[in-house]
Amino acid sequence: MLELDTLSEIINDALRGIEYPERPEGLYQPIAYILDCGGKRLRPVLTLATCQALCGNSDKALNQAMAMEMFHNFTLLHDDVMDKADLRRGRPTVHRKWDEATAILSGDALLTLATQRVTMNAGEYLNDVMDLFNKTAMEVYEGQQYDMDFEQQDDVTIEQYVEMIRLKTSVLLGAACEMGAIMGGASAEVRKAMYTFGEKLGLAFQLQDDYLDTYGDALIFGKEIGGDIVNNKRTWLLVTALSKDSSGKLHRFIDHCPVSNAEKIATVMEIYNDNDIPRLCTEAIKGYVDDAVAAVKTAGLSPSDEKFFIDLALSTIGRTH
Amino acid sequence: MLELDTLSEIINDALRGIEYPERPEGLYQPIAYILDCGGKRLRPVLTLATCQALCGNSDKALNQAMAMEMFHNFTLLHDDVMDKADLRRGRPTVHRKWDEATAILSGDALLTLATQRVTMNAGEYLNDVMDLFNKTAMEVYEGQQYDMDFEQQDDVTIEQYVEMIRLKTSVLLGAACEMGAIMGGASAEVRKAMYTFGEKLGLAFQLQDDYLDTYGDALIFGKEIGGDIVNNKRTWLLVTALSKDSSGKLHRFIDHCPVSNAEKIATVMEIYNDNDIPRLCTEAIKGYVDDAVAAVKTAGLSPSDEKFFIDLALSTIGRTH
Repeated sequence: MLELDTLSEIINDALRGIEYPERPEGLYQPIAYILDCGGKRLRPVLTLATCQALCGNSDKALNQAMAMEMFHNFTLLHDDVMDKADLRRGRPTVHRKWDEATAILSGDALLTLATQRVTMNAGEYLNDVMDLFNKTAMEVYEGQQYDMDFEQQDDVTIEQYVEMIRLKTSVLLGAACEMGAIMGGASAEVRKAMYTFGEKLGLAFQLQDDYLDTYGDALIFGKEIGGDIVNNKRTWLLVTALSKDSSGKLHRFIDHCPVSNAEKIATVMEIYNDNDIPRLCTEAIKGYVDDAVAAVKTAGLSPSDEKFFIDLALSTIGRTH
Repeated sequence: MLELDTLSEIINDALRGIEYPERPEGLYQPIAYILDCGGKRLRPVLTLATCQALCGNSDKALNQAMAMEMFHNFTLLHDDVMDKADLRRGRPTVHRKWDEATAILSGDALLTLATQRVTMNAGEYLNDVMDLFNKTAMEVYEGQQYDMDFEQQDDVTIEQYVEMIRLKTSVLLGAACEMGAIMGGASAEVRKAMYTFGEKLGLAFQLQDDYLDTYGDALIFGKEIGGDIVNNKRTWLLVTALSKDSSGKLHRFIDHCPVSNAEKIATVMEIYNDNDIPRLCTEAIKGYVDDAVAAVKTAGLSPSDEKFFIDLALSTIGRTH
């Protein structure tokens, strides 16, 4: 198996190598802008690694890997418009750097470019990759819709929250793995095993994100700690704490909070600690990592390839950023 | 060949028969809302009619015909957000009835549903229909981008304007015909001929729209006459008149117009008439209709099927709404 960094570089090179029509500039420049952000490229790396583990050649899934990253960036582009976000990875979002109409239209174009890309060199697997791509896209939209719905809703259960992040985030990691398995010629059972690996890894990652926003080290995590608490953001921590808040104290406190941000963070963390939330969260993360590891062990990979995926999953527990 | 109205009804029934997941409501209700508008359904009718003319069975292209209509409605949904439009076919637009985030997300989902639909029962033609669908989508986005660019631009040439409406409107009518030809098992030559028929028909329709907004009968046309003039909208009429405006009189008049709407319409129509614009426009429309008729005559259809398409094209010249 190639190194993680090598796989990321393959993807970055391929994305940089895309040639866009020169005109109309307003359509293609924002696409090049959002795809030119570096980063870990986790989704396409999973596609390449899975394909390589199954047929010894990651190249076969390069277009499908690129399609996964392009789709992911299309969702970021439109989500930023919906959330009215100003910054993405430290740079102005597309709708701030250009305008909202540009962000909507270039996002549409990026979705179609991703769809085109997923069909490229798909050969006998064209039907399978198209079906997986479209089904996953619909699930991601459903997740985003639930996320927006839950912002207006006080009684979200932890099961509803986990289903929302599964749809919004995890199915795309599952699909990234299965896409590589399809292009690597895998059986239905192995495709399913690798999908489950990605899906559970995605859940672990999202919960770890929630955890680190409150319990991370600001310097390593790369952003202010406690932002989710300040913004009353529905996270695994808050949803779980609210489900244990039979006295309604936490509900009232976050609804009408007359204190400073620092006091608010301190008080909510105290409630979290009193309710054992940090331990419950790290246990939940560990549970999803265990599920991911169990799934990949059924895929019949070589010991060294299996280790690659297990190490990737275990790194979630240890990660601090 | 089935009657036009029968083909429209087949499409309306099929669209009404789509079963959406019950939840999340905010994602699927706006899609059902925008697709439930009746209307002529010109694009999918072209797909069904072309398929029937070529293989005797319009059913083979039913999913692809639905995909054309779904794609068209996705573009309307997002265009209305970009243009901040309040009404569409006499009803509130999706972003007014719900909100902007809902319109963006349900539009994305409608694009993916259209993409799924185009692959259904495509069989041996899967690659061809996907390629045509994605290529056409990119052209439509380019057309919309040019349309937005031209709003800020005073020196649009008539060639640039025609290329813009070709991309924004006509290629989808061309693709609708070619989609039916593909599913009907046509040769590359016949596919091309039917594409050209639809493309030229689309240009004739768009120019006729421009013409009727100024020279139509308000009662029959169904909306106020002169709206384009009041809004300085770039139309074939205005772009052509500006290209003949060597003295700059029309430029200055529309830039700083101190008169009432009625006076503005009267003055601009006077300038149009002095420059022979209405006759030039009807001649241009007739030219595109002639091109469409010439194209369909090379497709080797039966005399009665050929007549169906020719009558459709000729109806453009006579149409008053």
